Amino acid sequence: MSYLDYVNTPADIKKMSVKELEGLSAEVRAAILKRDSLIGGHVGPNLGFVEATLALHYVFDSPKDKIVFDVSHQCYPHKIITGRKNGFLEPEDYVKITGYTAPQESAHDHFIVGHTSTSVSLASGLAKARDLKKEKHNVIAVIGDGSLSGGEALEGLDFAGSELNSNFIVVVNDNQMSIAENHGGLYQNLELLRQTNGKAELNLFKALGFDYVYVNDGNDIAALIKAFESVKDTNKPVVVHLNTEKGKGYTLAEKNKEPWHWHLPFDIQSGELKNSFAGETYNSLTNAFLLDKLKKGENVVVMTAGTPGLFGFTPEVRQQFGAHFVDVGIAEEHAVAMASALAKEGCRPVFSVHSSFIQRTYDQLSQDLALNKNPAVILVHLGGLSGADATHLGNFDMAMMTSIPNLVLLAPTNKDEYLNMLDWAMSQKKAPVVIRVPSGLPEAGKSSAFEPYKSEIIEKGNEVAILALGNFMKLGFAVAAALKEKGISPTLINPKFYHTLDEALLEELKDEHKLVITLEDGVLSGGFDEKVARFFGTSNVKVLTYGGKKEFTDREALESIYQRNRLTAPLIVEDAMAVL
Amino acid sequence: MSYLDYVNTPADIKKMSVKELEGLSAEVRAAILKRDSLIGGHVGPNLGFVEATLALHYVFDSPKDKIVFDVSHQCYPHKIITGRKNGFLEPEDYVKITGYTAPQESAHDHFIVGHTSTSVSLASGLAKARDLKKEKHNVIAVIGDGSLSGGEALEGLDFAGSELNSNFIVVVNDNQMSIAENHGGLYQNLELLRQTNGKAELNLFKALGFDYVYVNDGNDIAALIKAFESVKDTNKPVVVHLNTEKGKGYTLAEKNKEPWHWHLPFDIQSGELKNSFAGETYNSLTNAFLLDKLKKGENVVVMTAGTPGLFGFTPEVRQQFGAHFVDVGIAEEHAVAMASALAKEGCRPVFSVHSSFIQRTYDQLSQDLALNKNPAVILVHLGGLSGADATHLGNFDMAMMTSIPNLVLLAPTNKDEYLNMLDWAMSQKKAPVVIRVPSGLPEAGKSSAFEPYKSEIIEKGNEVAILALGNFMKLGFAVAAALKEKGISPTLINPKFYHTLDEALLEELKDEHKLVITLEDGVLSGGFDEKVARFFGTSNVKVLTYGGKKEFTDREALESIYQRNRLTAPLIVEDAMAVL
Repeated sequence: MSYLDYVNTPADIKKMSVKELEGLSAEVRAAILKRDSLIGGHVGPNLGFVEATLALHYVFDSPKDKIVFDVSHQCYPHKIITGRKNGFLEPEDYVKITGYTAPQESAHDHFIVGHTSTSVSLASGLAKARDLKKEKHNVIAVIGDGSLSGGEALEGLDFAGSELNSNFIVVVNDNQMSIAENHGGLYQNLELLRQTNGKAELNLFKALGFDYVYVNDGNDIAALIKAFESVKDTNKPVVVHLNTEKGKGYTLAEKNKEPWHWHLPFDIQSGELKNSFAGETYNSLTNAFLLDKLKKGENVVVMTAGTPGLFGFTPEVRQQFGAHFVDVGIAEEHAVAMASALAKEGCRPVFSVHSSFIQRTYDQLSQDLALNKNPAVILVHLGGLSGADATHLGNFDMAMMTSIPNLVLLAPTNKDEYLNMLDWAMSQKKAPVVIRVPSGLPEAGKSSAFEPYKSEIIEKGNEVAILALGNFMKLGFAVAAALKEKGISPTLINPKFYHTLDEALLEELKDEHKLVITLEDGVLSGGFDEKVARFFGTSNVKVLTYGGKKEFTDREALESIYQRNRLTAPLIVEDAMAVL
Repeated sequence: MSYLDYVNTPADIKKMSVKELEGLSAEVRAAILKRDSLIGGHVGPNLGFVEATLALHYVFDSPKDKIVFDVSHQCYPHKIITGRKNGFLEPEDYVKITGYTAPQESAHDHFIVGHTSTSVSLASGLAKARDLKKEKHNVIAVIGDGSLSGGEALEGLDFAGSELNSNFIVVVNDNQMSIAENHGGLYQNLELLRQTNGKAELNLFKALGFDYVYVNDGNDIAALIKAFESVKDTNKPVVVHLNTEKGKGYTLAEKNKEPWHWHLPFDIQSGELKNSFAGETYNSLTNAFLLDKLKKGENVVVMTAGTPGLFGFTPEVRQQFGAHFVDVGIAEEHAVAMASALAKEGCRPVFSVHSSFIQRTYDQLSQDLALNKNPAVILVHLGGLSGADATHLGNFDMAMMTSIPNLVLLAPTNKDEYLNMLDWAMSQKKAPVVIRVPSGLPEAGKSSAFEPYKSEIIEKGNEVAILALGNFMKLGFAVAAALKEKGISPTLINPKFYHTLDEALLEELKDEHKLVITLEDGVLSGGFDEKVARFFGTSNVKVLTYGGKKEFTDREALESIYQRNRLTAPLIVEDAMAVL
């Protein structure tokens, strides 16, 4: 028998001794490691937060007391002891639970959270509601040190530190790491606090209005229980600062924290990837291109907002760029504003960002960057419909940005075109340029130097014209081929950009085409397709648009998403024939 | 002769004595007051920052040394002594300069800035560029205490406090006020620092990695010069914290700071508005409605992010709502996340926000709110094409939000419809609802209870159908009337919402209509019109769309904007007849 056999709800751990909780910790850790090793997931943050999670549930009474996890990177132990252990113990049940908190799974989860720096703000709403409803319970926000640099977290801390005046507990899981090393002045303060056993007068949290409790060994269950008991039912905002060890209990992750923050499936013994890949990627391609530019004397500034690993910025790559590499920490707003100023001064900033995270900086894209027309370059990675979690979709970046004036939005369809566009973007001085990095592995393709803003006719035909944007050029070829089988010889076009239309080219289509088909790898609402539909609105040309419905999909197989949205050549041709 | 006669560039003040600078201060102050009294503008922040501006330019060598103003609320003195004094002295020249920093006007301005909390991030880009280019000069970010609560400012401070390691000076203009009183824990720390003459150990700026200098009388030129000289050419990031008096030198503004932050044209002697208005507004209507709900026992939570005055939340109104009024400070991201949590717990949060500032919280609208489907209500004010400054346009809110799933987006056309929609939004529990408050003064109109999601046929006709969204219903009536004069009897439709289409109703139009005209008070790109164009893409119905071009207009007369976009009944009918 194991301890976990007896644990189905948090109530089950309240009877345990510290020794038993330690035994349970080891089992929870093993379950996390096994799941991660088989399907990948967050390793380090979860392993470091096992004891704290058990202590939280030992002291507080969830779900009456409400625990809100930030970005959910450290929520696996919580999920295991709140009725979802089979999602970690039984490989066939893995798919039944998400890697994030999810109210649909459990009453112990209060929000679907996958973007970072949100817990304090969300929890402060729970606390305010409690006070207005004159209820009594604890509200606890858990936040990792890396997430503290995000604007939403800092806004939330500033608010909660003075405006609640009631029970509010922020647990800072300080594992001395963001995804990579931390960047920002506040981390010097966390270090000072750790070095002084929490006693330093200079204390960011106190400066924001919080009481403060420090736990020097954040993996010591007895100490954690004591600390949480000391703040339970407090009537003031308080920060409990835990010095935890990221990767605790798995030597490889303890020793080499960055690659073990999140990991693809691996062998537990050796730590080696089950499916390693050493070939060319858009990351390696981009980084080699930028390094070459730098060596040739261009004042390149390579930027990331706390996710260097996503873009192949390994410690070695970072070292190669030296002072020309800037990790701003998890702070996308700051990244875009800073890039704007760098570009104004003649530097060539290139900010790499996940499609889902560029959402965190709309206003800076508009006001700090586009209004000022500074020629910064932004590379949007992982854009496109995907089988990801609802919190990490690549569906929305294109539609979000098409309403912002002055932004040039490019969608290359292959490796050569991508590099040509990047080269052009970095050499022009008129406008900020966003390039949507193609999905998948780089494939060669024809591309001459990018000419603004001309779309390209790949194949000239008549009756039907296919506008295949970015990632969906392949689908464009497939549709063209399928139409040929029906005796139609379509025109196939690579639009190349989506902030505006090549109206001269579209105008010409009116003569010999009855139908225009648009294909784009993103949400239709607000997207490229609708601009095309508007353009042809007063003509006799009909328009059929293909992309994603406006919805948050959640770990749905891409195949199924494509099928539902009729994003296959046979379905598209079926629709086209019905219109013709 | 006056001192100002001799001042055309900052060089001209470097020879002045402190006494002369004080004389100049009085003249600068008078010029600001005169301009504000005649055309309105920011009063308090500018009056409080006159001496600091002169001292900055006395000590530093702009434009070689670069001064970046946050949100520009305190930039008038700077504009006056950097070659633009006529824009304050000569009423006929007032229109020639903006109320914000503007690089197109002067080499002493580095960015167009009108949204808050941006200066530190922008300046840190200038500093990084300087270091990479191995140049030597000072970079100074000016920021008001009120702007410190914004996520972008906090991200920027955190970054700059540790990542620059070179010259970087942040001047905090602490006038103890945001637009209204400050909200947030950091303001307790500023107060502590003021009370201890800057000597308190607990110091937010030091906790973020900055050196720190305090000036107790931020309107004392000699003290300011001394402080700035002490940090000039520093090789570390440093905060210079100035205790200034908001409204300094104008007794009315000193005594009553909130209404004098920004003021409409007024009589300098009495302070009275030149054109006062005491009638019903959408603000008074909304606040009465919400207060009534509260009195009837609904758990209403009225929210603003630092701009209570914009929405009629006077101190008296705030008192009436008591604990049910929440000003989060300038922190839109936090506001939306907090509203989501309040709604989840059964409260009825209603967050009022300027169209231009909802841009600051796209990701929270998507992830914290929409993904979690919590029924918070957001009232977007001042939406629509406008003659405002490029930084305060109401053009983009609708297009920005149409790509976010789960958000219900409503556009009422008159007072009764607005109240019905607000009532409906606050009584349903399924979705977050955004209501675009109509522009102008409330006008009565027919409206039965809002029925989701049915558009309304105002007038049934044929051949042409007009979809007149929100503010543009009036234009819709005008177009209908003009078409009738041409012998066409059009169908006039009030769409009521724009997150999706009433497809059943649109489907019916296909039978008897050849042309659909869409009218919307916002940018076309990504807007409602394009959804309509997409819907009719495969039908024989033609679509003509009217709204704003994708551009940043800048104090352009509304008349001219309408003309250029063909947003008048005669022009629209001309286009329609050409299509028919």
